[in-house]
Amino acid sequence: MAYKLYYYDIRGGAEPIRMILSYGGVQFEDIRAPMFPLPPKLPKEIKESKEQSVLFYFGNNNTSNVFVTVEGFGHETTWGTIPLMEFEGKKLNQSLTISRYFAKKFDLAGSNDFEAALCDEYVDTLIDYIKQVQSDDVNNYAAWLPILMEQDEVKRKGLEQEQKVKCKEQYMDKFEKIVNDNGGRFLVGNKLTWADIYLAHVLNSGELNHGVRFIDEYPALKALHDNVMRTPGIKEWMAKRPHTKL
Amino acid sequence: MAYKLYYYDIRGGAEPIRMILSYGGVQFEDIRAPMFPLPPKLPKEIKESKEQSVLFYFGNNNTSNVFVTVEGFGHETTWGTIPLMEFEGKKLNQSLTISRYFAKKFDLAGSNDFEAALCDEYVDTLIDYIKQVQSDDVNNYAAWLPILMEQDEVKRKGLEQEQKVKCKEQYMDKFEKIVNDNGGRFLVGNKLTWADIYLAHVLNSGELNHGVRFIDEYPALKALHDNVMRTPGIKEWMAKRPHTKL
Repeated sequence: MAYKLYYYDIRGGAEPIRMILSYGGVQFEDIRAPMFPLPPKLPKEIKESKEQSVLFYFGNNNTSNVFVTVEGFGHETTWGTIPLMEFEGKKLNQSLTISRYFAKKFDLAGSNDFEAALCDEYVDTLIDYIKQVQSDDVNNYAAWLPILMEQDEVKRKGLEQEQKVKCKEQYMDKFEKIVNDNGGRFLVGNKLTWADIYLAHVLNSGELNHGVRFIDEYPALKALHDNVMRTPGIKEWMAKRPHTKL
Repeated sequence: MAYKLYYYDIRGGAEPIRMILSYGGVQFEDIRAPMFPLPPKLPKEIKESKEQSVLFYFGNNNTSNVFVTVEGFGHETTWGTIPLMEFEGKKLNQSLTISRYFAKKFDLAGSNDFEAALCDEYVDTLIDYIKQVQSDDVNNYAAWLPILMEQDEVKRKGLEQEQKVKCKEQYMDKFEKIVNDNGGRFLVGNKLTWADIYLAHVLNSGELNHGVRFIDEYPALKALHDNVMRTPGIKEWMAKRPHTKL
């Protein structure tokens, strides 16, 4: 196959790309490297080299930083990072870059330049949601991912509930209003965009990673999520995709 | 004036927007809030509210996190963040979103969708450069900005030199090769793009913030930088822009 997507064996930053490619009817090689047990392994298709190493940054929470070093990676990638997409003799890096390129190709980037910009704004904001939640309490600064590293289940569930409350106020209340103000089904314009797909992915991963079901509390986000998940191409992808821890 | 850009009184994430608007001949209100002494003040034009606070995250280095809380901000912004751009009755948030929108408007986003994606990839990678340098030494993980927080000048200069060495290998060697392989003047295609402007801004801020002059060691990056800085609109902006600490 001509389309190759390299990433770890997780949803993560590659999952919206997989959903967009599936929406577009693209057959792609979904090349996955083991993520667990840590440290993650490299895709065997990517040539190993000792010349360079890559730091896989797990984010930070309020007590510690969690780093994983991936040795010998980066020889065949431009910047030593994945996801990497190879297609039609071309190579693209950076998860949002790849997502946006294929979103445009499949008419998922709005109907004009301003709608395209709104898609960009909402996706950039979802990245903020994933990586950091702005808070008025410096000691409670936390991203979602490091919470998963908490081994004490009671403490972890407590952190997840705290994070959920913050994310509702900072992000989900606002996304719900945006969808409602726009007619109750899409974030931008009157048709599906990659911002909807990205938000549906985020809502889905919140449930799978943390058991947090925002869609139970936000009717418009539920309508958007359900609409994305039953969209031809995406529906089939969701049914057949591998079950992964993240 | 119809165009209003809200940000702190620093170059930072708003400077490429200011350069792009200047290139496009747009007269804009450059609304700046005091950044120093910390904590930064809000733009007085943005309505204060005690309902919400924003965490201004200064990045992290290997010893500590530096946070600044901005109280009462966010009432008039969508997500409680700046930069915020208001124009023609519209509102856009997120620095890259705003930059990309105006880059398209002024034909600075490449000649086709793949060139637009390359611009995106290079800009996303420059954000990686600014925020984190991937390293094989977990204890030496550091972004540029926290280095400025080091009060011991000898130690700070040492950190800057270490960071420079890492950034050369991880980023600047590669950008130099990309420019050379593309004819020695532009990152993408055969004309100016916002990726060139972003890279010129990064090279310029490296010198102004840290005294690190990559352009002395990379002829192609120097050619690109000098070309951007003498471009009509940008040249006049660089001559008249406020001198700020960051």
